[in-house]
Amino acid sequence: MIVISTINEMQQYIKVAKKQEQTIGFVPTMGYLHEGHLTLMNKARTENDLLVVSIFVNPLQFGPNEDFDAYPRDFARDEALAKNNGVDVLFYPSTEEMYPSEMSLTASVKSRVNVLCGRTRNGHFNGVATVLIKLFNIVQPDRAYFGLKDAQQVAVVDGLIKDFNFPITLVPVEIVREEDGLAKSSRNVNLTVKEREEAPRLYESLQLAKTEIENGQNKTEAIIDLIQEHITKHTSGEIDYVEVYQYPELQPLEFLTGKIIIAIAVKFTKARLIDNITLVV
Amino acid sequence: MIVISTINEMQQYIKVAKKQEQTIGFVPTMGYLHEGHLTLMNKARTENDLLVVSIFVNPLQFGPNEDFDAYPRDFARDEALAKNNGVDVLFYPSTEEMYPSEMSLTASVKSRVNVLCGRTRNGHFNGVATVLIKLFNIVQPDRAYFGLKDAQQVAVVDGLIKDFNFPITLVPVEIVREEDGLAKSSRNVNLTVKEREEAPRLYESLQLAKTEIENGQNKTEAIIDLIQEHITKHTSGEIDYVEVYQYPELQPLEFLTGKIIIAIAVKFTKARLIDNITLVV
Repeated sequence: MIVISTINEMQQYIKVAKKQEQTIGFVPTMGYLHEGHLTLMNKARTENDLLVVSIFVNPLQFGPNEDFDAYPRDFARDEALAKNNGVDVLFYPSTEEMYPSEMSLTASVKSRVNVLCGRTRNGHFNGVATVLIKLFNIVQPDRAYFGLKDAQQVAVVDGLIKDFNFPITLVPVEIVREEDGLAKSSRNVNLTVKEREEAPRLYESLQLAKTEIENGQNKTEAIIDLIQEHITKHTSGEIDYVEVYQYPELQPLEFLTGKIIIAIAVKFTKARLIDNITLVV
Repeated sequence: MIVISTINEMQQYIKVAKKQEQTIGFVPTMGYLHEGHLTLMNKARTENDLLVVSIFVNPLQFGPNEDFDAYPRDFARDEALAKNNGVDVLFYPSTEEMYPSEMSLTASVKSRVNVLCGRTRNGHFNGVATVLIKLFNIVQPDRAYFGLKDAQQVAVVDGLIKDFNFPITLVPVEIVREEDGLAKSSRNVNLTVKEREEAPRLYESLQLAKTEIENGQNKTEAIIDLIQEHITKHTSGEIDYVEVYQYPELQPLEFLTGKIIIAIAVKFTKARLIDNITLVV
């Protein structure tokens, strides 16, 4: 594995790889790698000749109340994990390398953003889309891998790739779960023992909703009610949202049809958990 | 020469060309080709293996008071001109092909826009940058050619390519002039005979300014005054603006230093003429 820290060197490396007709899989991350990232890497590893992972904590996607400086960083650990997971190139630029001066332009995401977690993260996805345009132009991957845990991010990236005609295939990767169904997350350790016991009820509520839909329920409101009742009855968590949309457009629908997402966020004492399922009705 | 009208076919064509290690020169246009376009094409022709020209009247860059429908179009003529000027691929997509549905995101240009002609064309450069991101991802050129007649557009494209890290070399092409110095423009035919005789005074005023600077004048205001006086004294045109900035950042400067642009716009009875020079002080 090699570590590259300048844009110019990365683009030169890619130029040579492309001449050799190597396919490039790309996993963009903000570092502090966890099992979710490794799942993306392992999938990308099997589908491409070359696996490029980037580690860059992007200041543009942090809101004024979100602490960019406090975001956890551990490059030595990340580097070892990447090496052990078959990464060929680790792209690790500094903030100054990525943003040497104020950007003369940015991406402005118009739709898919004012719902779910994006509703309270004004400008977050503009920052995500802006850095991804840069990274896509630097790494020029054939395939880019994103986890469906953040299904809204996947939806925004889907729009970015399609609407800007990037010659890149988006590969959304399924949520990795514990044996009891709880979506894996670095936040799960902040749950109390009791909360941890309750937490699988979140995914259970999504599965219940799925069964109801398969049995013919097609009203959005009924599905939302069902999930809210289940979570309220079986957990001590406070529901932040339960939402159902077309996917990936994230447009509301009164009656369920086509590809949809059911997404939830629940606040426990010291951890806010999110989960979702997508299905075709 | 082949004509391609779908994005998918264009990207497939480029994929093959890149495998054959052909370099790609790109001239994006809105059609109704004139000598300025042909100059860009001829330069691109000599510097690349493959010459791709796009013809697309981009609705996103027209303001509410600018008539998209009335923009002149003559594809048969353009096709013949392209063929006779060594174009390999003419990319000619429909509006529906380029914008099949509302864009989920666009480019938002923050700097270099609220000066010169951009000041009265709110949102124009957002539309230009948005379509260029698409075209750059479709054509994936090694070099992209733009005329310095619209020096502000060149500045915006410079920011787009650098800040978004497109692996593309921007090639700005010098203004083509009549023998008497007047910058060539399809609008020149709208001048009266008397106005046409006066019009070379615009470029003359820029040359005068250049000489003054070379002789040691370093005050922006003095240069602007000089140009305004010359144009007022020798023409019947009404000055729209005379502006001096750093180039390509288009930031104001009190004292002239580094690379600068001196740009003017003058309204005659039925034609508004623009001209500019860039120089290093």
